[in-house]
Amino acid sequence: MPRKTVIIGGGAAGLGSAGGVKAADPGADVVVYTENEDVAYSPCGIPYVHGGEIPDFERLFLAGKQAYVDAGIDVHYETAVTAIDTAAKTVTVAGEGAVSYDQLIIATGWNYADPGVPGGELSGLYYVKNIRRAMEWDKVISETKSAVVVEAGPLGLEMVTALAHRGVETHLIDPNPYALAMMADPDIMKPVEDSWRELGVHLHFNTTLEAFLGDADGKVRAVQTSGGEIAADLVVISTHKTPENALAKAAGIKLGSTGAIVVDERMKTSAPDVWAAGDVVEIPHGLTRTPLQGLTGSHAYAQGKTAGTNAGGGDRAYRAVYVPWGTPAGKWVIGGASFGEATATALGIPYVKGEAQGISRARYYPGVQPVRVKLLAEPGTLRLIGAQMVGGGEGIKERADFLAQAIRFGMTLHDLSTMENVYSPAIGALNEPIVVAATNGVAESKKKA
Amino acid sequence: MPRKTVIIGGGAAGLGSAGGVKAADPGADVVVYTENEDVAYSPCGIPYVHGGEIPDFERLFLAGKQAYVDAGIDVHYETAVTAIDTAAKTVTVAGEGAVSYDQLIIATGWNYADPGVPGGELSGLYYVKNIRRAMEWDKVISETKSAVVVEAGPLGLEMVTALAHRGVETHLIDPNPYALAMMADPDIMKPVEDSWRELGVHLHFNTTLEAFLGDADGKVRAVQTSGGEIAADLVVISTHKTPENALAKAAGIKLGSTGAIVVDERMKTSAPDVWAAGDVVEIPHGLTRTPLQGLTGSHAYAQGKTAGTNAGGGDRAYRAVYVPWGTPAGKWVIGGASFGEATATALGIPYVKGEAQGISRARYYPGVQPVRVKLLAEPGTLRLIGAQMVGGGEGIKERADFLAQAIRFGMTLHDLSTMENVYSPAIGALNEPIVVAATNGVAESKKKA
Repeated sequence: MPRKTVIIGGGAAGLGSAGGVKAADPGADVVVYTENEDVAYSPCGIPYVHGGEIPDFERLFLAGKQAYVDAGIDVHYETAVTAIDTAAKTVTVAGEGAVSYDQLIIATGWNYADPGVPGGELSGLYYVKNIRRAMEWDKVISETKSAVVVEAGPLGLEMVTALAHRGVETHLIDPNPYALAMMADPDIMKPVEDSWRELGVHLHFNTTLEAFLGDADGKVRAVQTSGGEIAADLVVISTHKTPENALAKAAGIKLGSTGAIVVDERMKTSAPDVWAAGDVVEIPHGLTRTPLQGLTGSHAYAQGKTAGTNAGGGDRAYRAVYVPWGTPAGKWVIGGASFGEATATALGIPYVKGEAQGISRARYYPGVQPVRVKLLAEPGTLRLIGAQMVGGGEGIKERADFLAQAIRFGMTLHDLSTMENVYSPAIGALNEPIVVAATNGVAESKKKA
Repeated sequence: MPRKTVIIGGGAAGLGSAGGVKAADPGADVVVYTENEDVAYSPCGIPYVHGGEIPDFERLFLAGKQAYVDAGIDVHYETAVTAIDTAAKTVTVAGEGAVSYDQLIIATGWNYADPGVPGGELSGLYYVKNIRRAMEWDKVISETKSAVVVEAGPLGLEMVTALAHRGVETHLIDPNPYALAMMADPDIMKPVEDSWRELGVHLHFNTTLEAFLGDADGKVRAVQTSGGEIAADLVVISTHKTPENALAKAAGIKLGSTGAIVVDERMKTSAPDVWAAGDVVEIPHGLTRTPLQGLTGSHAYAQGKTAGTNAGGGDRAYRAVYVPWGTPAGKWVIGGASFGEATATALGIPYVKGEAQGISRARYYPGVQPVRVKLLAEPGTLRLIGAQMVGGGEGIKERADFLAQAIRFGMTLHDLSTMENVYSPAIGALNEPIVVAATNGVAESKKKA
């Protein structure tokens, strides 16, 4: 009899898991439960359809439902799992009762943190997540005059830009002194904030949400903040991602300090034959060992593949992360790896800094863009510990990938300052910005020594 | 009395050297001799002005002559050095006689290999190099009906595309079975060749140049090849780069197997107080230790900085190279690091291959481009030894830089297959093509084992 693997969740982690099981054990019986109407679409694309950069929602769908049927993966749509019994090795499925498993993979994902203020029941509060809801909200955006985006996290950044591109009077409120403060440094965000102001966005930093205010019809009309009332037809709530841990918690599966499930390098939880992947787990940072939760779809997918491979009898490890990241923001693209100065300072980690204002092509080649690179290194050894960038867009993502891998491999500023680079006018400058930043960092460290 | 450093050559290596000397020894007396009318322009930009991508030649100039005066660097323009006497520590300068030096840096660069066929004295033969000549040739191109480009090296590639963009009937002749055969693999060049054909370019591979044929006025009218005669108003000769070694050779300075000057890690030649940098030196390949000559302007500049720093009393090393490269070609951008399959096979180096056809952004994001990655690894250890890519352009240069550094640091396909990547629809896909290629390479190696 084939082994049966049950997967809870149909996002990147859940489907990555399903593929991982099938690759390791082609005969396995794989059942995926999702509360959604769909699987295999890209929720990450939603803000760009709202912003008009992507012309329609349809293209966010990756594969039809038949593709999963063909792959032997049995997806149950709009189906909630309400409990896990790790002793009986069953899950309770709404409408199906107790379903037994040989292996279980929890990929329940994340949800927005509850804003925790009065007025949460009003209509007009948009939590960007589900594609069917997004299609409906897109029509609402067309008729919206003014909107407030609550918190300048990664999704908030994208929605601020999207709403501004749609011609909506857009306000951003955030309790921190600058945008994306949990990840980025203020000098990296400065040009982004300037470009939002150019787009007409109103930025309210150091500003706390106090309440959603409604009209007689139960529709939001404003938000109350520590800095006063801001009128709004629409409120986009992009509070931080919290793990959807209710099922795991109720089942007695061990959670970590972030509230997410603790897993080992094989993505195994504390319960026998139970694995987990994606935004419901926490993964240690490669340098600080601090548990991180709420990474990207790419991380979720890779974790899912690991969990699925192991659940299917294979052997695959998923190790600590160095977190390359990047995103368009206003008219710029920002990115980095590991942490920046703000986080290093908050954690009490000393660093040497190397900075450079470089360019993406030869200075005379049309389309040349600025690329600002900031590298942080451990004093003494000059081992790279973090990086942040802001630029026109060319090569930011690839440099972030590289710098994360450079941190993982213990490369130093010396190593980066002696790195070779492609020089071809249309695609690369004589001096690679990373090399210049590293060279400046080495010089800086000598001055200090 | 300040130490006097004489530099022969005003290209990237010569000026990099001058800057290196001044940085290490600000009081140094630095004299640069160049046969050209200018220094500090980018010869690499010339094909793109010819092609119309860059609007004029003026923007290729980096700094005015005054900038060098201000920096305390004494540049003698249109001045030939005719001999070096390493015993007397003098150089013979046309019009100046014997000039003594404390330190000498040879940065005489390269020239095109002599095609070695009859008709070399005809007019209409264009060797792309000097910017003043390029300005004159650009007018000739405007009146050219048909052109032949001799050899599909890096410059030949650029000139074929440029001439086609200018509406010239363009023929490429090359003795190899495909373009850029000394560096690239045929599968990488296939889409490039297809795109040239779409532009109307006539490709003549396996075809040897036999003669330039002239008219009664001594102007070229055709080239004679092993495959017949090809009519041409203009012939662009882009034979391989040979080191300008005459001065060094006559002075008894040790040359290597490529004909270029042998230097140690500090860029020191076999003669006391004589350094060399740029296309006149050879540098070992980091894996094979094969001496390489004729690298890029970026390499020349970094070598110059090393030679200058050391000549100025500092201490700087320039190590073996892993040669990231990249260039637009037809409608594509190609690139890589170290070597490809063709070179590995020619050198008898065994390899495991990992390939992937990936994308540069989310598959649904406008502007998404193909990115094909091919990785070569040492069997057994799976250490990366080479890489080649072809794509729309996004991220090719940054990936080539990264892969060269990955080879230098001994990263394996396992390491690359477990690398994290940025996922953000506008700038990066869920799966980084390098990661997919590495994963496929690991699977391939298991099949073979």
